[in-house]
Amino acid sequence: MNAVIMVLAGDGTGPEVTDQAVEVLEMVAELYGHRFMIRTGLVGMDAIEAYGTAISEDTLAGCAQADAILFGAVGGVAQVGDGPRPEQALFRLRTSFELFANLRPVRPFGALVDASPLKPEYLKGTDLLFVRELSAGLYYGHLETVPGKPSEIRRRGDRIEAIDTLLYTEDEIERVVRSAFELAGARRRHVTSVDKANVLSSSVLWRRVVERVGREHPEVSWEHLLVDTCAMRLIRNPAEFDVIVTENLFGDILTDEASMLAGSIGMLPSASLGSRRTPGGVFGLYEPVHGSAPDIARQDRANPIGAILSAAMLLRHSLGLASEAAAVEAAVEAVLADGFRTEDIAYDGGTAVGTAELGLRVREQLAITDQQNQ
Amino acid sequence: MNAVIMVLAGDGTGPEVTDQAVEVLEMVAELYGHRFMIRTGLVGMDAIEAYGTAISEDTLAGCAQADAILFGAVGGVAQVGDGPRPEQALFRLRTSFELFANLRPVRPFGALVDASPLKPEYLKGTDLLFVRELSAGLYYGHLETVPGKPSEIRRRGDRIEAIDTLLYTEDEIERVVRSAFELAGARRRHVTSVDKANVLSSSVLWRRVVERVGREHPEVSWEHLLVDTCAMRLIRNPAEFDVIVTENLFGDILTDEASMLAGSIGMLPSASLGSRRTPGGVFGLYEPVHGSAPDIARQDRANPIGAILSAAMLLRHSLGLASEAAAVEAAVEAVLADGFRTEDIAYDGGTAVGTAELGLRVREQLAITDQQNQ
Ligand SMILES: CC(C)[C@H](C(=O)O)[C@@H](O)C(=O)O
Ligand SMILES: CC(C)[C@H](C(=O)O)[C@@H](O)C(=O)O
Repeated sequence: MNAVIMVLAGDGTGPEVTDQAVEVLEMVAELYGHRFMIRTGLVGMDAIEAYGTAISEDTLAGCAQADAILFGAVGGVAQVGDGPRPEQALFRLRTSFELFANLRPVRPFGALVDASPLKPEYLKGTDLLFVRELSAGLYYGHLETVPGKPSEIRRRGDRIEAIDTLLYTEDEIERVVRSAFELAGARRRHVTSVDKANVLSSSVLWRRVVERVGREHPEVSWEHLLVDTCAMRLIRNPAEFDVIVTENLFGDILTDEASMLAGSIGMLPSASLGSRRTPGGVFGLYEPVHGSAPDIARQDRANPIGAILSAAMLLRHSLGLASEAAAVEAAVEAVLADGFRTEDIAYDGGTAVGTAELGLRVREQLAITDQQNQ
Repeated sequence: MNAVIMVLAGDGTGPEVTDQAVEVLEMVAELYGHRFMIRTGLVGMDAIEAYGTAISEDTLAGCAQADAILFGAVGGVAQVGDGPRPEQALFRLRTSFELFANLRPVRPFGALVDASPLKPEYLKGTDLLFVRELSAGLYYGHLETVPGKPSEIRRRGDRIEAIDTLLYTEDEIERVVRSAFELAGARRRHVTSVDKANVLSSSVLWRRVVERVGREHPEVSWEHLLVDTCAMRLIRNPAEFDVIVTENLFGDILTDEASMLAGSIGMLPSASLGSRRTPGGVFGLYEPVHGSAPDIARQDRANPIGAILSAAMLLRHSLGLASEAAAVEAAVEAVLADGFRTEDIAYDGGTAVGTAELGLRVREQLAITDQQNQ
């Protein structure tokens, strides 16, 4: 098939891990007879330097013409303050393309089970998928609903105060909950909906929607769980979960916590999906869960697996190439089983290699498997 | 000394664990020559049944006359919906007495290190103290600042939406951050301030205040940490933390997560402090971090240690009886070292005992130590 992929490598370790993911995609194209047109654009610090904004309108227009976006990471050393900030690139992309469903699978690889701070017996059987709402909540202002700026620091009389608003419409909740139930239908058919309904109105509305969508999916079992209890159960009983659906900020916190089940945040991929159809599936943005890690950038030390597994998700969800995606995942698994490790997962020694070599090993493995299957 | 303690045992396992904590306090009074007047009041489901509200004005007035409140747990089977809810008792108490600083120490006991899902080498050296802001944020509406009800579900045109507001004044941030720095000064002198300043205005204000209070405490080192990264580091490097200060909901989530370091949420005590002085310290509410656990209520299965250690915090913070508090903590440690365990921490068998027997063992140990010291 032909597909257009927009690559936004970004800051810090973004470029080096994205390079490996792109090379994996190119290898897939070669082995399976596809044609992927790779386009690139600036995001983050480089874009701020070049255009004064974390992502330009031109780059956004380029994304709109692609089937999918492969994203690296954004974030500089100074993340907070006035002026344009690199993370705004992510927010612009998430809102421009209404990327409302952020999928973050957590499945510890057998070869890495000892890399986790958790005891192996607690990890056993863990294979869960977060569906984090990504388009609303505290992350975004809703000018039309709250008079005044919904998120700001202001003086009122003689005091200074800061306000953020957490707003969800029923539709915003419904579309992401629906995605979660559909994804669960193709997995172990269980949805855990996470909220703080004993405190938040938005969570009470969230529960109502879950109950309605749940009734429409009798084949899927589901439960409500409070976010504080979830933070505990993720460590104590991770194998109990199948699909976990939750609002934006809860998802942000819980997925970083859950990354420790996989041994390192460097292992985790993500997909941010909207509703625009592509020839092979749905338009999306794919990125490793880890950030830009400026302290180890350009030292060939970053773990490229999160990025490579994100490319596999891209193949599956935006291009409809499920067996190619599975081949990439199997190649990663085989390379880990052979003991190759970047430093973040080198708990057992293994064979310590750099970013580029780990990517190369995955491509070699892809080629070997392809040969064996001929 | 003479002191008045208001006991609000509440729902589920609240009464049975609180009974043990009260008996420990009575034993302390006897051994050390104090006079504690114990008063009791209804909160939660019983109060709703009796008065139609989760806590009555009379009970609140009784609390106002006490030096401290010993609280059990509230929460019924159906926690969400219309009508009075048991948790409202907690919110009323927190706001009525401006209990803004919620202290939750997490220090895994040596004897229980194997009860945690984490590998012992990750737990080594863990001794941290959360200072959770408890009086503001998403938990409370601020009618005067946001027109309309700040937390509600409403229809706007043809859509239904729900809104919650996250509001902090500079003063609300400052008083809790100041407590955190003061507490750190008497510990390992390090403060980690947790926020989401790359997204929230309230976190940007939070950072400013931390920086200012930090400058006033040159003897204490401190850092900013994003809440998602904190959720990860709590598992990967728990021993790195000393005092962690954060806003209300982040603290709710992170403390439940961190409870797993101690092996069971049943182990953890808490103190919610305001600024009203008592003869021996400051007025406060003391409660185990665990909830009402209705599924195991009245079966002599609940772990009373969280409640007993909360009583120790009461002795220390509200009555100024630091050595009595330390004696209770040492007694708990000794009983655990002797292998006595409720079921939630009985990972290694040990000697499985019920709620009442574990409490009895702690009191016996207190008496033995007292004898030895004569
Ligand atoms: C960079 C940051 C704004 C972002 C978020 O909070 O969404 C990141 O933590 C993530 O999880 O993708
Ligand atoms: C019962 C509930 C409202 C409460 C809270 O969220 O504050 C509890 O989880 C806690 O941590 O004390």
